[in-house]
Amino acid sequence: MSPSTVRRQWEVASSSTAQNTHNPIRSIVENLRLEPNPEKPMIALSIGDPTVFGNLKPPVEVIDAVQECLTSFRYNGYAPSTGYQEARDAVAQYSSEGVTVNPQDVVLCSGCSCALDLCITVLANAGQNILVPRPGFSIYRTLAEGLGIQVKFYNLRPECGWEVDTAHLEEQIDASTAALVVNNPSNPCGSVYSRQHLQEILRVAQAKFVPIIADEIYEHMVFPGQTFHSLASVSEDVPILSCSGLTKRFLVPGWRMGWIIIHDRHGIFEESGVRVGLQRLSQRIIGSNTLIQGALAGILTRTPQKFFEDTVNTLQCHAKIAYEMLSMVKGLTPVMPSGAMYMMVCVNMAQFPEFQSELHFVEQMVTEESVFCLPSKCFDYPNYIRLVLTVPEEQLREACQRIADFCERHHSHSPNTNAHARISDKLTNYSTAHALITVKEDGIRP
Amino acid sequence: MSPSTVRRQWEVASSSTAQNTHNPIRSIVENLRLEPNPEKPMIALSIGDPTVFGNLKPPVEVIDAVQECLTSFRYNGYAPSTGYQEARDAVAQYSSEGVTVNPQDVVLCSGCSCALDLCITVLANAGQNILVPRPGFSIYRTLAEGLGIQVKFYNLRPECGWEVDTAHLEEQIDASTAALVVNNPSNPCGSVYSRQHLQEILRVAQAKFVPIIADEIYEHMVFPGQTFHSLASVSEDVPILSCSGLTKRFLVPGWRMGWIIIHDRHGIFEESGVRVGLQRLSQRIIGSNTLIQGALAGILTRTPQKFFEDTVNTLQCHAKIAYEMLSMVKGLTPVMPSGAMYMMVCVNMAQFPEFQSELHFVEQMVTEESVFCLPSKCFDYPNYIRLVLTVPEEQLREACQRIADFCERHHSHSPNTNAHARISDKLTNYSTAHALITVKEDGIRP
Ligand SMILES: Cc1ncc(COP(=O)(O)O)c(C=O)c1O
Ligand SMILES: Cc1ncc(COP(=O)(O)O)c(C=O)c1O
Repeated sequence: MSPSTVRRQWEVASSSTAQNTHNPIRSIVENLRLEPNPEKPMIALSIGDPTVFGNLKPPVEVIDAVQECLTSFRYNGYAPSTGYQEARDAVAQYSSEGVTVNPQDVVLCSGCSCALDLCITVLANAGQNILVPRPGFSIYRTLAEGLGIQVKFYNLRPECGWEVDTAHLEEQIDASTAALVVNNPSNPCGSVYSRQHLQEILRVAQAKFVPIIADEIYEHMVFPGQTFHSLASVSEDVPILSCSGLTKRFLVPGWRMGWIIIHDRHGIFEESGVRVGLQRLSQRIIGSNTLIQGALAGILTRTPQKFFEDTVNTLQCHAKIAYEMLSMVKGLTPVMPSGAMYMMVCVNMAQFPEFQSELHFVEQMVTEESVFCLPSKCFDYPNYIRLVLTVPEEQLREACQRIADFCERHHSHSPNTNAHARISDKLTNYSTAHALITVKEDGIRP
Repeated sequence: MSPSTVRRQWEVASSSTAQNTHNPIRSIVENLRLEPNPEKPMIALSIGDPTVFGNLKPPVEVIDAVQECLTSFRYNGYAPSTGYQEARDAVAQYSSEGVTVNPQDVVLCSGCSCALDLCITVLANAGQNILVPRPGFSIYRTLAEGLGIQVKFYNLRPECGWEVDTAHLEEQIDASTAALVVNNPSNPCGSVYSRQHLQEILRVAQAKFVPIIADEIYEHMVFPGQTFHSLASVSEDVPILSCSGLTKRFLVPGWRMGWIIIHDRHGIFEESGVRVGLQRLSQRIIGSNTLIQGALAGILTRTPQKFFEDTVNTLQCHAKIAYEMLSMVKGLTPVMPSGAMYMMVCVNMAQFPEFQSELHFVEQMVTEESVFCLPSKCFDYPNYIRLVLTVPEEQLREACQRIADFCERHHSHSPNTNAHARISDKLTNYSTAHALITVKEDGIRP
């Protein structure tokens, strides 16, 4: 249609950005036939919202900090688009472990999603590509593909604790590669990389001159005995944009408080306009709620160490339970996580020949056992299911038992006739309807 | 650089989106020489944040509603990307005046800015254009130009209460026009359109088949005797996306609670994918803080009418004061507003020949009088200054007096030698430094 043509009817169209923005998890889950067994209460091991079961709550210090801001009437106005100075100071201090962070390197955002959005948007043009892990969290695709930025995958190696296949990573880099996304600790893998492995990744980035977006929303959520190293603390040469926030560690995903830390190196982000670009992009929506910004210093400094310890102890305890129970199940190979809040379990599909894929396996498990795990297709990967470890222990045990029962029934080497008539009368009352609605209708954060 | 070329050095570049995203007000203000008179405390009549002077505060009912959510521990998890159902219900009810709004037509966003961002992004592709008012709020440019969407202006007519020049509007529409932005009540004009005038605008949109983005963030903020009509309540045929939020009327801009209401007509937004597009786009950042979402029903229903009345009475009272004082000033022609929180004042530049433009006029007024108003260039318009009416009355009077003194000194028909040695010892202590920093460093919401 030439500009001079006059419209003779409504010709409204949605933009290519809208058409290309999609949440792969949502599409996959919506296309599953999820009809739980009415005899068994639903247990959703699929929802990456640690608060959803009511067992994990933010500490009272965090609530108090927000309450003080609320009743002070001092945090109702606009904040600067990159955040209040005092909030940026607090994040800089909180994040200065093994690396120096200046407050002017901090950009507050509406959740880590918004932080990632800004980083991808500032670094890549339509037609370029970014490299993301496989298996990996689908938001990178949601954000990039909407903007016409291509996503290329590099492989992780389950047999090596989901480390990056650095040779494969290197192969994937081309001249249109605008950034490399590294997610550590990982969703969905629960892996935590060693300092040495981070160095290997950084070597590739340095050799190929690819800046890194470090998605560290699970920072510090590592099991006792493990150490979290931020990517930026390991390199002084690779320019890195680190993304994190309160979401997971402080158990407040709905508060939408995230941030970017600009680790400029040799002035590369400065000269290229990336720093000023982030600041300009932050002016689009001025995202982050001022009550939480006002409370941020209090939240980051006053939360007792014990709160963090309790959370990771719970997660580790749950990981051990699930690992132990599922290790004994023929046809399943759980991979013990080291952090975050997930466990990947390999389904040896050859031993479940009646199912075409893990999708079908997952559907049927809902039908028979009312247990729902995300199929690894949600993470662009085949033959795994992902369990969320934040469910209460009782439910987790029950779910694992039901998974075991299900597998025993369907495992081809031991065709099962004596399906356990195992009745659980101590189930918590987490309603089927709610679980499914949450899965089907909601933001579906995995 | 072809995809196979290997980089030999860092070649990081910021994206075109980052480069094209800019806040015109910020650039203009940053390029002004703003050096207040050290003898006079600064009065910033430039900041569109009603909370900044401390005289206007949200009602206690609003604070209580949030406090209940905070201490309930029930609003910490993820909400659906378009918002909690109960919050969308509440907005639908709040917005059903003269038009039916269903909860599924409501999309919650991180402030009205984010609402506008989603609307512009869903309707327009790079290379298309949107029509925006001149003078008008600059965020439309910030949002559109960053995405490669062109902004075309249609004129408002100051002599007719800033009504749209509908003939000019019609001329501007071409086949690449993806949407028409209508801002009522208006920033910066303070105008409030009659039902009849809205019908005239709608007739153009209908005749040319252009969907409308109605920026109604100042809805209901109209002076006694005026009536606010939402655009959607006036037409049943034109597809409209209405944007609003808590920001202005509830005096909580920092809370970032905004929304879109989809007024689909004849299924046009449905068929074109606009409805689903908005929902997809909302999944990018899942913007809006859950504590405020949880409180939204309480906020919208429990806020006493008296609170709203007090606010608009204050605004009208201030408008009258400024209008009266500045009407008497030679060379100035204030335009009495009917709503919102701004007043435009025409500077007859011919009568101030020493100044090349209103920019220079504004600079010199800061230098001599420590009073800062935004030059209308910030709204893509010449020869006006915009006053914010939310400052405390005392300061407003003082500012108007200083503006009068300044004009008297510089008006060419009465070259002034006896500059008033007017000393004001009852100035509130609003510090110069703060005012300027707020103007120069911050989000600069006008
Ligand atoms: C790896 C990863 N990155 C980012 C996010 C998004 O975090 P937020 O909720 O703060 O936007 C998530 C949420 O699940 C995640 O798992
Ligand atoms: C006309 C207009 N639209 C939108 C906005 C943005 O509102 P919010 O702060 O809710 O993003 C403003 C803020 O000043 C405005 O004046």
